[in-house]
Amino acid sequence: MQKLTDQQEQEVQEQLALYRQGVQEIIPLKELESKIRTSVIENRPLKIKLGLDPSAPDVHLGHTVVLNKLRQFQEHGHIIQLIIGDFTGKIGDPTGKSVARKQLTEDEVKHNAQTYFEQFSKVLDMDRVELHYNSKWLGEMKMEDVIGLAGKITVARLMERDDFEARIKEGKPISLHEFFYPLMQGFDSVQLECDIELGGTDQHFNVLMGRHFQEKYNKEKQVVILMPLLEGLDGVDKMSKSKHNYIGIDERPEEMFGKTMSLPDHLMMKYFELITDLPLEKISEINASLAAGQMHPRDAKMLLGRTIVRMYHGFGASERAQEQFISVFQKGSMPDEIPELQWNGSEEVNILELLVNVNLLPSKSEARKMIKNNGVKIDGTKVEDPNLIVRVQEGMTVQVGKRKFIKLLVDGE
Amino acid sequence: MQKLTDQQEQEVQEQLALYRQGVQEIIPLKELESKIRTSVIENRPLKIKLGLDPSAPDVHLGHTVVLNKLRQFQEHGHIIQLIIGDFTGKIGDPTGKSVARKQLTEDEVKHNAQTYFEQFSKVLDMDRVELHYNSKWLGEMKMEDVIGLAGKITVARLMERDDFEARIKEGKPISLHEFFYPLMQGFDSVQLECDIELGGTDQHFNVLMGRHFQEKYNKEKQVVILMPLLEGLDGVDKMSKSKHNYIGIDERPEEMFGKTMSLPDHLMMKYFELITDLPLEKISEINASLAAGQMHPRDAKMLLGRTIVRMYHGFGASERAQEQFISVFQKGSMPDEIPELQWNGSEEVNILELLVNVNLLPSKSEARKMIKNNGVKIDGTKVEDPNLIVRVQEGMTVQVGKRKFIKLLVDGE
Repeated sequence: MQKLTDQQEQEVQEQLALYRQGVQEIIPLKELESKIRTSVIENRPLKIKLGLDPSAPDVHLGHTVVLNKLRQFQEHGHIIQLIIGDFTGKIGDPTGKSVARKQLTEDEVKHNAQTYFEQFSKVLDMDRVELHYNSKWLGEMKMEDVIGLAGKITVARLMERDDFEARIKEGKPISLHEFFYPLMQGFDSVQLECDIELGGTDQHFNVLMGRHFQEKYNKEKQVVILMPLLEGLDGVDKMSKSKHNYIGIDERPEEMFGKTMSLPDHLMMKYFELITDLPLEKISEINASLAAGQMHPRDAKMLLGRTIVRMYHGFGASERAQEQFISVFQKGSMPDEIPELQWNGSEEVNILELLVNVNLLPSKSEARKMIKNNGVKIDGTKVEDPNLIVRVQEGMTVQVGKRKFIKLLVDGE
Repeated sequence: MQKLTDQQEQEVQEQLALYRQGVQEIIPLKELESKIRTSVIENRPLKIKLGLDPSAPDVHLGHTVVLNKLRQFQEHGHIIQLIIGDFTGKIGDPTGKSVARKQLTEDEVKHNAQTYFEQFSKVLDMDRVELHYNSKWLGEMKMEDVIGLAGKITVARLMERDDFEARIKEGKPISLHEFFYPLMQGFDSVQLECDIELGGTDQHFNVLMGRHFQEKYNKEKQVVILMPLLEGLDGVDKMSKSKHNYIGIDERPEEMFGKTMSLPDHLMMKYFELITDLPLEKISEINASLAAGQMHPRDAKMLLGRTIVRMYHGFGASERAQEQFISVFQKGSMPDEIPELQWNGSEEVNILELLVNVNLLPSKSEARKMIKNNGVKIDGTKVEDPNLIVRVQEGMTVQVGKRKFIKLLVDGE
């Protein structure tokens, strides 16, 4: 192996240390180091892959765990390859059973990719991102190529995937085409000769497919970097839109801040580490201060909230969001837990109807009276007009008097 | 349902009775009757499918069990669809592990199909046979179509196939592409809208795939007719070239006759029923005579031998073959079992070298002496020239003196 200069060796070690931060697993670490080394010697960027599902373009902070890692690679000159898995989206579900896998049109796919692109631009430098649609190569494969691909993996290996294994045990059917999703994801890496693929730990099986098939097609194997999954605001499940426990990357500053404040204390440090841009030393400091009792958890959480808002809306917005939060909730008697209510009515609704419908007030006349007495607030803002048409939004807080709060959930799934 | 005339009803019942003869299973019988009925009413021929492996074109009497059944359908005006599975032959084995599944060239496929065609012409009226190559449609399918096909069957269903099940239990790997062979066979039936598919009982799983996929693609389902497997001359294994227990459809009359005489008695009636063209009543008669002791088993077997030779070589040849057999073996002291020897030498060999190599004689000079004394015979014919170049053939009998026999096997696999 070529000998590196001291400066080059330092560069390799710096990159390696950075990329290892906060990851769950690197498979294998040795190869990552070797790839960085080659990249430094040859002054050649590595190709870092992230696969995206074209059917669910709503990006939340859970996704930024991976995006932040990609950003680190970008900062050292590497190339990000975003792969829109539009081929599976276009073919839909051939069994016709699953509603989730409904067929997307060409336009929907493009639109969703655009949505990703816009949202990702808040974290990544999109001028240095390659955007690929895997229908370009998968759509061109013929039966002969498919058989060739299928001949490079065993049935037993595929059945090791957790969800397949579970369904087999439970006697639930697996349609044969489902075996092809991991194959296709693996083949994407063959096609684009990816050096590294990122994914959440729940993608363990699928991202390893890239290594498997690259080897079978006599390509250099990619390194797999698995990022931890971020628990959502409930502190239990993985952050996801369907669990209503997420903070969207596009949400308003007050909403982001307020939601952050509702996070269980024990997850704060994980959030600092995985989804903020604070340097490691700063995060260690906060952790130490908390442990020593020199910092109140609420203050740490407000710093987390400000940091998140600052990352997506800038400094000014982060300060305002905190002030707003303090004036509305903290100075009032904000309950520890705001009851949540699923809103199934129309998107736009008269304020009086809303108040009655969610049982905050018994009648429209009571509601009108309460508004006159300045007793109704939406997201902390006083309602003055009893004819106000409210546009119901996810997480919108409705307050009546000092004690009665309700948070509205919108069925967006 | 349309009412049939008495004559039509009789025609339906006649056909049904004929097709049921000697079969192992019809799935389902009701649908077969209904298809015949429609065919008679609408005066429309049924399409009867037989799939063929392009890599093994040597046809033996085991194959004629199915061919004779096809012949019966032909005699009532139905159309035979022979499908050469050239697509699988052309792609070979993508794992590159199996020697058996080596890739065939276009020319080899055509040549093998031609060989089938020539040999089948001894049983079928080839003017009323459609010949199809499944690469025509399978080769054109794209990934999207393959996924569509795969989405119409479950993994569990495929794993029910006996050999897959056994390999899973034994922990032996199944390559994913192997799952596609039954799928492709099934899709052939969709493509050609087959009414009936024939196969041996060992094809149970594969031929049912046609029914499965026709239903999924909203076609009328084919009826499956499974024929019994014919045991070979050893009376144990299924007749096959690799087991050296077969009578080839192209073999010489003497060889056919002689091999038939080596058949264990208990299989005689099965051979009469499945591979001869004798009418059922005649076969019943023979069976009764044997049971009553009015007919010697050797005479029955000679009738079987004559019948088989007559079917493939005509009456004259059948008589001559029997005479030859009697003069060589029966009048001489033919042993009950002739030892067999695998011949690995060159195809053409000098008679003296042959006799020494197979240990019938200790030296070339001894061999030369024995020939001079008229003591060497090949297939019952005296050898007179010690410089004779022998072309070694499968099943060739070499005799030295009255007692020493050897039968040569040629490694053709």
